Order: sequence, then structure tokens, then C-alpha cells
Amino acid sequence: MGYNLTWKIIKEHLVEGDMIPGAEIGIRIDQTLTQDSTGTMAYLQLEAMEIDRVKTKKSVAYIDHNMLQQGFENADDHKYIQTVAHKHGVYFSRPGNGICHQVHLERFGVPGETLLGSDSHTPTGGGIGMLAIGAGGLDVAVAMGGGTYYITMPKVVNVKLTGKLRPFVTAKDIILEVLRVMSVKGGVGKVIEYTGEGVATLSVPERATITNMGAELGATTSVFQSDDVTKAFLEAQDRVDQWQPLQADEDAAYDESIEIDLSQLEPLVAQPHSPDNVEKVSNVKDLKVHQVCIGSCTNSSYLDMMKVAKILKGNVVHPDVSLVIAPGSKQVLNMLAANGALADMIAAGARILESGCGPCIGMGQAPATDAVTLRTFNRNFKGRCGTGSAGAYLLSPETAAVSALTGKLTNPMTCEADIDVVMPEKFFINDNMVVAPAEDGSQVEVVKGPNIKPFPLNEALQDHVAGKVLIVVEDNITTDHIMPSNAKLLPFRSNIPHLANFCLTPCDEDFPSRAKENKGGFILGGDNYGQGSSREHAALVPLYLGVKAVLTKSFARIHKANLVNSGILPLTFENSGDYDHISLDDELVMDHLLEQVKTGKVKVLNKTKDVTYDMSIDLSDKELKIILEGGKINFIKNA
Amino acid sequence: MGYNLTWKIIKEHLVEGDMIPGAEIGIRIDQTLTQDSTGTMAYLQLEAMEIDRVKTKKSVAYIDHNMLQQGFENADDHKYIQTVAHKHGVYFSRPGNGICHQVHLERFGVPGETLLGSDSHTPTGGGIGMLAIGAGGLDVAVAMGGGTYYITMPKVVNVKLTGKLRPFVTAKDIILEVLRVMSVKGGVGKVIEYTGEGVATLSVPERATITNMGAELGATTSVFQSDDVTKAFLEAQDRVDQWQPLQADEDAAYDESIEIDLSQLEPLVAQPHSPDNVEKVSNVKDLKVHQVCIGSCTNSSYLDMMKVAKILKGNVVHPDVSLVIAPGSKQVLNMLAANGALADMIAAGARILESGCGPCIGMGQAPATDAVTLRTFNRNFKGRCGTGSAGAYLLSPETAAVSALTGKLTNPMTCEADIDVVMPEKFFINDNMVVAPAEDGSQVEVVKGPNIKPFPLNEALQDHVAGKVLIVVEDNITTDHIMPSNAKLLPFRSNIPHLANFCLTPCDEDFPSRAKENKGGFILGGDNYGQGSSREHAALVPLYLGVKAVLTKSFARIHKANLVNSGILPLTFENSGDYDHISLDDELVMDHLLEQVKTGKVKVLNKTKDVTYDMSIDLSDKELKIILEGGKINFIKNA
Repeated sequence: MGYNLTWKIIKEHLVEGDMIPGAEIGIRIDQTLTQDSTGTMAYLQLEAMEIDRVKTKKSVAYIDHNMLQQGFENADDHKYIQTVAHKHGVYFSRPGNGICHQVHLERFGVPGETLLGSDSHTPTGGGIGMLAIGAGGLDVAVAMGGGTYYITMPKVVNVKLTGKLRPFVTAKDIILEVLRVMSVKGGVGKVIEYTGEGVATLSVPERATITNMGAELGATTSVFQSDDVTKAFLEAQDRVDQWQPLQADEDAAYDESIEIDLSQLEPLVAQPHSPDNVEKVSNVKDLKVHQVCIGSCTNSSYLDMMKVAKILKGNVVHPDVSLVIAPGSKQVLNMLAANGALADMIAAGARILESGCGPCIGMGQAPATDAVTLRTFNRNFKGRCGTGSAGAYLLSPETAAVSALTGKLTNPMTCEADIDVVMPEKFFINDNMVVAPAEDGSQVEVVKGPNIKPFPLNEALQDHVAGKVLIVVEDNITTDHIMPSNAKLLPFRSNIPHLANFCLTPCDEDFPSRAKENKGGFILGGDNYGQGSSREHAALVPLYLGVKAVLTKSFARIHKANLVNSGILPLTFENSGDYDHISLDDELVMDHLLEQVKTGKVKVLNKTKDVTYDMSIDLSDKELKIILEGGKINFIKNA
Repeated sequence: MGYNLTWKIIKEHLVEGDMIPGAEIGIRIDQTLTQDSTGTMAYLQLEAMEIDRVKTKKSVAYIDHNMLQQGFENADDHKYIQTVAHKHGVYFSRPGNGICHQVHLERFGVPGETLLGSDSHTPTGGGIGMLAIGAGGLDVAVAMGGGTYYITMPKVVNVKLTGKLRPFVTAKDIILEVLRVMSVKGGVGKVIEYTGEGVATLSVPERATITNMGAELGATTSVFQSDDVTKAFLEAQDRVDQWQPLQADEDAAYDESIEIDLSQLEPLVAQPHSPDNVEKVSNVKDLKVHQVCIGSCTNSSYLDMMKVAKILKGNVVHPDVSLVIAPGSKQVLNMLAANGALADMIAAGARILESGCGPCIGMGQAPATDAVTLRTFNRNFKGRCGTGSAGAYLLSPETAAVSALTGKLTNPMTCEADIDVVMPEKFFINDNMVVAPAEDGSQVEVVKGPNIKPFPLNEALQDHVAGKVLIVVEDNITTDHIMPSNAKLLPFRSNIPHLANFCLTPCDEDFPSRAKENKGGFILGGDNYGQGSSREHAALVPLYLGVKAVLTKSFARIHKANLVNSGILPLTFENSGDYDHISLDDELVMDHLLEQVKTGKVKVLNKTKDVTYDMSIDLSDKELKIILEGGKINFIKNA
């Protein structure tokens, strides 16, 4: 049997481990990207590891999240990222240059290379044939330093596309169909690989729409071949020298297969409040619309925007609808401004927003109470739009634009506009908003405004650890409980001391002050502690508050890894009934820890109750070393 | 002696009083405008007065302030204003259509008519020969209902312009020169009238820049003649039928005169933190710049933007500068998008913001800590930009654009770009973002989201009033103390119950809860109580909290008027030493009030201290009626 494309790229980058699905492997990372909301922490971590100069082929720092700038914090963060990037060999994409994934596809992505990005939609790069994976800031910082990236070797799913899309049926409808079939959990531990004759009918931006929203499957990433379509795209971006052909062997093996006949698809919509709650647009009757948002890293390419412009041209946005459009990059915006398409949008009554993430991450354009908002975005979780009572629907730009005119959700196949757009032979190439790193970083001063606080570093594990139980929480606590994230807290991602005042407050308002008074201690949790978002701040902030260990019935996988990376002991009860006998303020003691952790067993004495608990600590060899050193940064520094 | 232009327009609209400077006069209002941050309250007041249909020639409701929409409140407010406007005969300018003053100038302003707007920069309309005055929402609501607007008959200042501006010297430099000469208090009680041969060299948008920023003089308004330049502007807006010639008589008398030789002016800048802290740009050496903002109701016309585009074309914004540009209206944005100028701006690295007030009112784009921000706006008060430590400089678009390229404050006369722009013969006329009111409003449902709370209404004055002293404050308390306004509170201007939780909290955090516990009572203030912004919420919120009377050594004029409008008694001590003998929680009683207020004297018994104070209440006949009825809305309703 031959190799699939995923295997080929992994094999080319394999540093450690065996390519057996489910086993841990280490791969070499060629490129990294960061955005500003996760980037500040990634660069603080890079500094903490004392890495002078990044060792990747290309690393780019983007500003696209916090661009509303309601206070000094955002601009300070931008300045920090700009200067730290300049010093350490990272390209800096200035605010206004566009959304990281769109710009990276246009200007930096290289078929066959690996890309690690501190943003969950990094798989967008799979549209140009990269193995592009989203990760936490620390992993990206390690990769920038030349370190190996560890993942579980994925299964590979073959999504075979046959036929050809009809007009007004789009790449968005393909990924919505995949979501309908596989569900938001269907991709966990898997790479989704698109094959079949239908692939050649899809442009690179269309492929990127599909790989981008593949993140909603829970997949490791998604990938398309690099073919003549890819070559033409790179040629139009003046980068054909970076092209190479790449595809699966004809007899490639896959772990699973799905087939989709593109000619049978019709416009789809993901209804509130999940991206896999998919229905045919034609089946949703009489849905009055209040807001339409077009843009985001999923659907903001030149092609998307030109089709929208053609639909809007000469028409008027319905009086009860607010239509906002955010082209994905300076390149796209500039081309639309030069060729009259932007003028057509404006004339029709569209509100043009900056090229950035904007409403997709709840940064502005919260709809009215109980509103229906149609969005070309990738997520429609309850409240993500900024309005808890609103219902968000995910759909294609074409469906969105047509509906903005009618004022209700409308099947775009009823539209008679000519939306035939050809891919330009040359895009506008103008990288003047990308600042190259300094040749000699040693002379560059890194500017840290008052919102940039030092990064908390742990110490090597002590043999004797004691303290109080600072909080007792129930089962299924999420990282949103541990470290809430919202529009108010997002500007403080580089300010752990400020964030610390909100740690676990959804469970107990007094936890931060209690932790501070006691100079740290322990967290007691139930089953599945730390589920949800991969947010590493949910470990960094407890570290800052002096938490030495978290004792639970069980952990969610990623949060446990984040605790290990912060040097916090993740302990689970051998007898889960012990959980019931521990109280707030109980004094716990662990002795001979340096020996105990190596055995995978830890005895915890409850001095208050005079009982000893048997606990497990389940660590790989590498994780054990990280715990002993007091976290991943120390581990890397001391390596 | 002949009439000046101000007298001519006032005479034409005089309803009541004698035109003696300093005396109260009443004038008829032809047009009104509201923006969204003051508009919600104005329309709640219109509803409270039970006015079915506005009686003005034209009333327009704009959305231009709260367009970032960080929560549901903004969109709810927009929907309320849209529906209440539709019902009551008001034109609705949708979000995205532009800044009220720019759009009103383009599409609605009529030479010789009166315009009352619930925004302090309403005098922009003076650029087209209107008598355009800013006022509180209640006054605008009364005017919409056909009521007379009362002002103090102003003195008229003749600013005679001779000569002609040199290239790169602009209308902004003229108003900065007037501010330098007259200061921010120099215009109080005055109308500034521009005359002389230099007037004919200025386009309508240039004139509007001058009248707009005349608000910073503290002037009642500013006004230009209506001449061939005005006619050409209206012709280019397809509204020449609304033109009439208007100018001062040759032998007109003025109360004061100033002469400015335009040919001698050079580029000026208002340095932090006051619009009258004016210096020549050439005298400010080596000022490194971090942010440049171009736009706002002062400088966002087509001409301004075209000149900026010509300066930016083919260049790159300095890497340490964030340049944001917000064209003033959909008309302007659309023309720039169609003629390539917007593409030139984007290519140079400008960030394009929505047509709205944006950074000028601190709605986004707060600069970094300690940053220098150059702004084409009208106000540079400390902290207004959203960053307390930043320094804001006010200047022309030309100076701003040139400095954005060099990275430091730069005299634009050193620039070699050709910035000759001719006024277009036809502007793009497309009013599809203005919604005309319903023919029959009775069928229109007004949508009030949960952020739109009922408006507090007082009752007719009681003969016996008693209660506790709820707070004791010192001299010079501002309306910012009484009712703080910031980005967090601005979305709640239509939610008095929410705002009430912040009333006077800068002086005493417990005031709101104390007022609520006691079901109202009294405020004790020192000298000059209620100075600063004309914010009527500083009276509405105390009314909501049950405040019956404010006892002070003296009042600021506008706040006293707002208290009267809310039916709250403004009492001053005959013996100011009595202030020292009243304490928090003292019980005060007033009897026979209905008779007492008519005499202008009120005896206040302090039951706690067993002393009686002699106090004054200084009211015009009209104000007395308003107080007896329990506020202006009751007075209008019962009239």
C-alpha cells in the first residue's frame, strides 16, 4: 500500500517516535505563526527560554484579534510583539495587514512544510498543502526555538470529493456537509485529507475554507494536495518558486473514508448553537434576519468578496439588516478598492470593517437582543457573538449576501446575479505592512508597556510540599471556569497578575484572595477537570497563584498537559471516594516527592483529618523530566 | 447700521423676547438632528411628551457614536432609534451612513434655516449658512414637538478673513488660529461670524471645519454666508433648489472684531491637553509620533480625504506609526472607493475605519502608554483618546498625513506632493441608507430592548418636602462627578437605572445605595456645583434616585437649568456659611413650598440640628412654572 499525503509530510518531518496512530511522535516545525491574543504569552515564553533568535524557516507575528483598542492595553501589546519579533528574528504583520491565516496563505505558506500556529484555525494552511496545526503558545515558542513538536500520530480520514459544485453552492457548504456527517467530535485524533476528482475544481482559497473549518471537527488538521491549482495560486502571488507537487499515492491507505458528490450538494447552514447542527437552507423557512457578517479567516478571500460584491451591486441592504463586511487581508481590501467592488458594496449599504477577526471573536458587532445573525464564520457557540440571546447561523458568503438583501435567510440559488469570478493572474503584491526582523537583534529594545507583566516561572520540584486546600470544585469544571475569557479579559492575556484576580471566580469569588493569603496551596477537583478550550492560561494563572498540585478524580487531556508544562502536579485519586472526605482549608503534606513521582504513586497526608490518600501521577518519561525541572520552560532552558 | 448675518437669521426665527445681547429669546427651530449616544434619551423624552409626529421641517436621527457594538446594548439602541424615528416622522440615517454633521451638511442642511442638534458640534451646519446650535436632548425633543428653543441672545464676533491660504495651510489652521487668539472660553455667549474676502476662497467643507471646531471656543455657534460657493456645493449635491443667498449687510454692526490674514498663516497644532494650546508646527521640534488618526466631524470631507490620499500615494506609513482613517460619510467613502483614492491609502498602509465618530470619542484606537497621537479632531482633553498617559495633538489632515509617513510631527509645507483637488461637480448621490419615516406612524411598533429603560418622570411639586442629606460634596463638582461618562457607561445612556449605580460615586461610592435606601433626599454642594459638560443625565439620574433638591453655595448655569427641567429644586444659601453646619444624614424639611418658591425664598428646617436656613431659588417665570409642574416634560404635556 502507498502513503497518503499526511503520512508523506509527517515522515518527512519525523524526529522521534513511530508512526502508529495513537502513539506520540515528534515532528520538526518549518514555520510558525502567532496572533496577538495568544502571541504576547508565546513571546514572553520565548524570552523566558532565553532564545536569542528563532530557528524556524519562517516565523510570523500577526496582529488581528485585538484591533478595536478600547484601552492602552491593546496598543501596548502590539508594540511589545512588534519589538520582540524584531529582536528575535520574527516577521511582524502590522495591524491592518489582515487576518493571520488569510495573509499566511497568500504570502508565506509553502506546500509540504509544517506550520505550527498559536491559533486553532491554523489548519487553514492545509489548503495550500501544508501540515498546519494549532497549538498553545508555549508549544509554538518551543518550535520557534527549534524544538520538536509532539503530537499523537493521527488516523487519516479520506474525504473523497466527486463531481463539481453548482453555482451558488460553495466550499463552505462542503465543510458544513462534512460537519453534518462527522459531527464536532468526529475528527478528534484524525487528519482529514481531501482527495478525488472534485479537488481539482476547487481554488486554493476554497480549499482553505474547508481546512480552516476542519478545526470544528476537532481534527488535528486537514490537508489538500499541491497541484496545478496550487501552482497557479502561488504564481499569482509571485511565489511559484515555493511550489512543489504533492499528493497521496494512488493506492494510499486510509483509516476511514467518506465520499461527497459535489454536484448533489446544496446551500447549507449551521444553526444555533453548534457548527454541526447543519440543515439545508431551503429547509429553513421564514427566518427573519437582523444582522449579516461576512469575513473571518474562513471566508474572506478575494474570490469570496468579489462574489459578494457582484450579488450586492445595484441593490440595497434590507432596512432591518446591518450588513458588515471585513475583507481578510490588505491584499484583498486593496484589490477590491482598486477594482470598484468595494464601491459596489458600500453603495449597497454594507458597513466595511477593518481586515481582522472582529465580530467572529466577539470583538464588536454584537447583535441586538434575540437577534438572528448570519455569519460566514466558523463557530456559532452561544454567546460567542457577544449577545447571549442571539442565534448565530453559519453559511457561505453567497447565502449571506443574498439574505442581507431580502432580510430573511434565502437560498442563493434563487439569485440571478452573475457571480462568475476568475482567479486573478496576479494578485496585488505589496508587503509593506510586514516588517522584516532586524539583522542584528541585540540592538533592538523590547518595549513592554505596563500591561506586559513578567511571565510566572516555576522552580524545580521540591521534595517536601505542603499547603491548604484552596478550593473544592465539582465534576466537569472547564478551562472557562478556571480562567474566564471574555471581551473584558482578552486584552489582559499578557498580564497574568491581573487575570489571577478572576481565576476560578465562576466557582468561588474568594479563590484568588484565598490563594494569595495562603501563598498558594492545592486545588481539589472532580471528574474531567479542565475540559474545554486548550487555554494554557488555565495553568499559568494557578502557577502564579502558587498552586502546587491539582487533586482530581480525573483530568481532561490538554489541561493536564498544560499543568505539567507549568510544573504543577496533576494527581488523581486511586480511590475516588477520598474526594468526599477532603474539605476547604484542610492542610495537605507530601514528602519524598522526588522519589515518589518517579513511581507514578504519591501519598498525600491530610494533617487536618489525619488520613493519608493514595494518588496516581501518570506521566511519560518526558513529562516526568518536565515536572522535576519545574515546567517545560526550565526543561528547555536546562536541556 | 445694517444687520449682521446672525441677527438676520435670528430675527427671521424670533418667537419671543428682545434681541438684546444677554436677554433670553425664543426661536423657532426648522431642523433637528440627534446622534445615538444622546438620541435614545431625546426620543424617550419625545415619547414622554406624547408627541405623535414631529413638527419640524426636517428631523434626522443618526447612528454614529456607538458603532463598535461590544454588547447587545448598542444594537438595541440602534433598533429603538430606528423604530421610534419611523413612528414619529423622523428620518433615520443607518449605521455606516456616516457622521451626523458631515451627512447633514451634504444632504439636509439649508442656508438660513435653524438647526438644533443633541451634539455639541452641531455648529458644523454654520458652514452652509445655517444657525446651527448644540443642545441637550430634552431641548431637541421639545423642538421636534414644535416648541420654542430658548437661548441667551448672543453677542456677535466678526472674524474678518483677508488674503488666501497657501498650499498645505488649511481651514483647520484658521480655526486653530482663532482658538489661539480667543481661547476656549473666548466664545461664551457669542456667535462667531466669518466675513471678508477670504471667505470666498473657502469651500463649504472648509467652512464647516471652522464652524465645527468653533464649539471649542465655547461659542453659541459660528456661521458663514451663503454665496456662490454654497450654491455650487448644493448644486453638486443635487439640492440647488434649497439655496438662497445670505450675507451680512455691508454696514453691519458687530460686538467684537478680529482680523486674520490667511496668506500669513502657517500650519498650526494644538498641543496637549487643550484645543487652544496652539503652536506653529514648525516650532515643535523632534516630536516622535506613534499614532495618526484622520477623520471625525471636523476633517473627514471628500476634499480632506483626497488630499490625504494624494500625500500617501506611493509611500509607506512609518513602521512605528499606526495610521487610521475614517472617511466622514458613506458618500465620501463611496467616492474614494470608486476613484482609487481609498486604494492608494490602503496601499500605503492606512487602516480604514467605519464612517463614524470612532477614536474622536474614545470609541476604539486608544493609543499605547505614553504615546504621541496626532489627530485631525476637535478635542484633545487628557484621557479622551482612551489612554490617560498619551498626548493628543490636533492638526490638519495634511499635517497628519505627512507626519504619518515621516514618523514625527512634520511641517507639511516641506511635502512636494501635488494636493490640488477640485470640488467635484457632482457628488455621488445615494440616500439608500436613510430610511424615510412611515406615512402612518400609528402602525409602527417601537422596539425597546432590555437596555431601553423607562424615562424617569417627576411629579408636580409637593407643598411639604422632607428627607435626609444624602451626600456632602465640596466646591467645583463637575457633571463628570455627578454622572461619570466613559466607554463602559456610554452604552447605557438610555438606561437610567443602570447609570444610577454610578451617580456621584467619584465623590462617595455609597451615594447610590444610600439614596435608594432612603428613597431619595437632598444633595449638599459647594460653589460652582455642576460645572463642565452640559450632560442632562447629571439631573435625570438624581431625579431617578429621588433627589428632591440640591442645596449649594452656587450653581453652574447649565446644570441648574437641567435640574429645573427635571423638577429638582436648585437652592442656594443666602448665608454660605450655613453649608459648614450641615452634616450627612441630617433631616431637612421644607413646608409651604408652593407659596415659598414663588417668592424666590425658601426656608429649610434642619430637624437634626434644629436650625432653619434661608435659601434662594432664582427662577424665570417660565422656570417657576416648570418647577411647579414637576419638570419640563410635564410642563409641555400640560401646556
